[in-house]
Amino acid sequence: MLEIPSRPFERDNIPFEQLFNPRAIAVIGASINFSYGGSQFVFTIKEAGYTHPIYPINPKYVGKELAGYKFYDSVSSLPDDPPIDLAILAVPAKIVPSIIEELGKKKVPFAHIFSSGFAELGEEGKLLEESIIKIASKYGVRILGPNCMGIHNPQAKITFLMMAADLTPGSLAFISQSGGIAVSHGMRAPSLGYHHSKLISVGNQIDLDILDFLRYFKDDPETKVIAMYIENVKRGGHEFVQLLKETTMKKPVIIWKGGRFKTGVQAVMSHTGGLAGNYKLWQAMAKQTGAILVSGFSDLIDQIRTCLVYPIPKTLGTALISGSGGFAVEMTDKVEEYGLSVPPLSKDAYKKINQFVPETNSNLKNPLEFGANNNLEVSIKTIKILDEESQYSFILMTTSPEFYIFRGNLTMEQVVNKISNGMPKNKILAGVGGSFSMTDEGVRLNHIFKKLAYSIAQIVIYDSTEAAARCFYRWWEYGQYLERRK
Amino acid sequence: MLEIPSRPFERDNIPFEQLFNPRAIAVIGASINFSYGGSQFVFTIKEAGYTHPIYPINPKYVGKELAGYKFYDSVSSLPDDPPIDLAILAVPAKIVPSIIEELGKKKVPFAHIFSSGFAELGEEGKLLEESIIKIASKYGVRILGPNCMGIHNPQAKITFLMMAADLTPGSLAFISQSGGIAVSHGMRAPSLGYHHSKLISVGNQIDLDILDFLRYFKDDPETKVIAMYIENVKRGGHEFVQLLKETTMKKPVIIWKGGRFKTGVQAVMSHTGGLAGNYKLWQAMAKQTGAILVSGFSDLIDQIRTCLVYPIPKTLGTALISGSGGFAVEMTDKVEEYGLSVPPLSKDAYKKINQFVPETNSNLKNPLEFGANNNLEVSIKTIKILDEESQYSFILMTTSPEFYIFRGNLTMEQVVNKISNGMPKNKILAGVGGSFSMTDEGVRLNHIFKKLAYSIAQIVIYDSTEAAARCFYRWWEYGQYLERRK
Repeated sequence: MLEIPSRPFERDNIPFEQLFNPRAIAVIGASINFSYGGSQFVFTIKEAGYTHPIYPINPKYVGKELAGYKFYDSVSSLPDDPPIDLAILAVPAKIVPSIIEELGKKKVPFAHIFSSGFAELGEEGKLLEESIIKIASKYGVRILGPNCMGIHNPQAKITFLMMAADLTPGSLAFISQSGGIAVSHGMRAPSLGYHHSKLISVGNQIDLDILDFLRYFKDDPETKVIAMYIENVKRGGHEFVQLLKETTMKKPVIIWKGGRFKTGVQAVMSHTGGLAGNYKLWQAMAKQTGAILVSGFSDLIDQIRTCLVYPIPKTLGTALISGSGGFAVEMTDKVEEYGLSVPPLSKDAYKKINQFVPETNSNLKNPLEFGANNNLEVSIKTIKILDEESQYSFILMTTSPEFYIFRGNLTMEQVVNKISNGMPKNKILAGVGGSFSMTDEGVRLNHIFKKLAYSIAQIVIYDSTEAAARCFYRWWEYGQYLERRK
Repeated sequence: MLEIPSRPFERDNIPFEQLFNPRAIAVIGASINFSYGGSQFVFTIKEAGYTHPIYPINPKYVGKELAGYKFYDSVSSLPDDPPIDLAILAVPAKIVPSIIEELGKKKVPFAHIFSSGFAELGEEGKLLEESIIKIASKYGVRILGPNCMGIHNPQAKITFLMMAADLTPGSLAFISQSGGIAVSHGMRAPSLGYHHSKLISVGNQIDLDILDFLRYFKDDPETKVIAMYIENVKRGGHEFVQLLKETTMKKPVIIWKGGRFKTGVQAVMSHTGGLAGNYKLWQAMAKQTGAILVSGFSDLIDQIRTCLVYPIPKTLGTALISGSGGFAVEMTDKVEEYGLSVPPLSKDAYKKINQFVPETNSNLKNPLEFGANNNLEVSIKTIKILDEESQYSFILMTTSPEFYIFRGNLTMEQVVNKISNGMPKNKILAGVGGSFSMTDEGVRLNHIFKKLAYSIAQIVIYDSTEAAARCFYRWWEYGQYLERRK
């Protein structure tokens, strides 16, 4: 399943606190102009509010400054106090080995190699990687990368997220083998209302790898959910399986495996220079370890939000609420397709709902369809009644902020507060929006609503019923796994 | 597969032109106040720009006006010239039969029964429907509904779309058994850049049914693509299959079948009072007739856009372009999962692209990943080269308007014009956006971009790679079907 390169590195006692909270940072290969590369790290980390020293290094610019920081000509010329815990390398691949040598001599414990041009480009790059490993292990410099974005730690105000990153600390740890996906996720999460404890882009993993970080987050009290984008694992499958088994007993682990099919596997080879492995083995491994497999970026985000806010459900019973009969049919189809069940309402609940919803233009079975009688008040009253129905774990309703706002004459805040005050005590309430938005304005309102509903009421608004159903089912499955492991 | 109620109605020679272009409309059950129901039809049709007479009817309000139209006390008191071609009934279900009797005497050819409370509510409602059929067939009044929104015909400026509907005429005919889905689709389509020739909400289909409209659109020169939301077909399956076979030889027919699974089937029963039938039979029928089956609202919209703008592809070969390696891997996985192939670039094309994209930070195989070298110019130059590669029918690229705008310092119009000027001549070019948007602003820009790219460059921007792949594959499949039928 997994290739096992021989690497001399110690796996225990990695001083992660130094990596995550460096007392000083050297950026090697920064240039005087703002551009992609080293100088952007300098700007971004400064803007994030990092108050410890940052040393841009480039012999060409000695005597000048970058973002207020003095340029140095080499690693050896840097001050020793405070100690430099992290060096970021943005230099051509060929000179990386010599820089690592300098860092070793300076006793810098962590080198994040941003540069690309290594194993992902073939034989020559692989040889470069080997020489880096050799030098790094001689001095005990730990390597993150190459070909990666590095670390985002809101607590320490370090980030690789350009464009005014949101540095609110959160409880999701995300480890990504793709820098692009790390960046996209880092930007998208706050716009949906959730945040990272740490976000790590690991790249080619020639030293520090997914397993090292996974082990750290397993015991990290700030991390409630772990998510990973993995293309290939560089250590033995047995080790990975064992670690996953231990971790999932403590917190959910969500894995998005990139490179599932034929050409996708080749694409992985080009991207981070590794072998991808057979996806069937990954599915078997997920079953064995309780890891939750997802299949893409949106799916990842949906599963993360599900695991972050909802308790693990005990059953698959789902109550459906919709304003339109057609969409009620669609919802029912989709939740059944993904394994949930749609048991009928009790007679008692039916009678109670019928007291405030007439049967004309409505359907008061399950799915509940309010048609012309649809409004937010009716939904909230109904949720209160469904809350007492033992056959349901989930209540899934279509949400249309544009409808609530225009028809109900409410502001967005009033809508969210009404929902927040009407939250069920015993059930998981979730919304399906997005595909119901009818206008440009509706799309915009729906996106704002998504974030507010999540931040204030702790409700996930999914873009589609299938997205909700998939996530619910896997979350239930994880609960079943934990039951079996008891 | 399908129930066959005995109905005495003539199926040929339905005077659809009168229904679609009525010379006068009576709205029975309109009230003096703006509210859900008859009065809303009066307001909406007036606002749409309909210039022929509208007669609100309600004995309670005689002597008063609604939106500038005089109230009448009954159908019999209406003027005879111009003839009333359409009556909209928004009255309690129980009095519908007596109104139909009046309409019959007045020789009104079409009655759209908006009212609900019929077969969808059980036995009593079914008896009501039977009495309506009896009276209507006695007088030759054709019935649309009950329990439906009626017709939207931009050419005649008639619509049921409230909230300032877009009345641009288009080339999609959409027949929906769900009023909610008809309304949502009617609103969503213009916000994505496409428009209807007609949009019909058929409801319980006690007389005019999906087949009647399908037959009309088969030969309608304004209609290029036909889409249908169907819960149940009220005529013999053989008739439907025969009509589909004839229609698909002329234009694509997209079917979204609601009520695919156990409870979904029951939900259909409650919604439009019909039996849903087994979904496997629908799949077999689609195979036999060349109809394109889709599975939900978003899927429907994606397939419609695909069929409206793209030629039918001859092969499944797909070239992928992405800015990020991780997303390139995801795209490859998804297109392979849905049956497309990702053949490699020719050596010649590789060399050409390599002239303006260095290999560092990029991957110039297929998927093409530009990484740090990514920008719109590079993509457009690449598309020109891919246009000559015979192994591809599709070029699918990730699109990020926020990236183009912020990084490329372009306006949205410049972005769209650049793409429009760089369109391939021999390939189908499509975009995947949405899930790559990182910020609130990105989501908004992406939505606007979707519409502009479609309207100006005739490119479909899908929300996900799987959405694109699904639609491409089905479109190719339809071409294969046509080949076999030759």
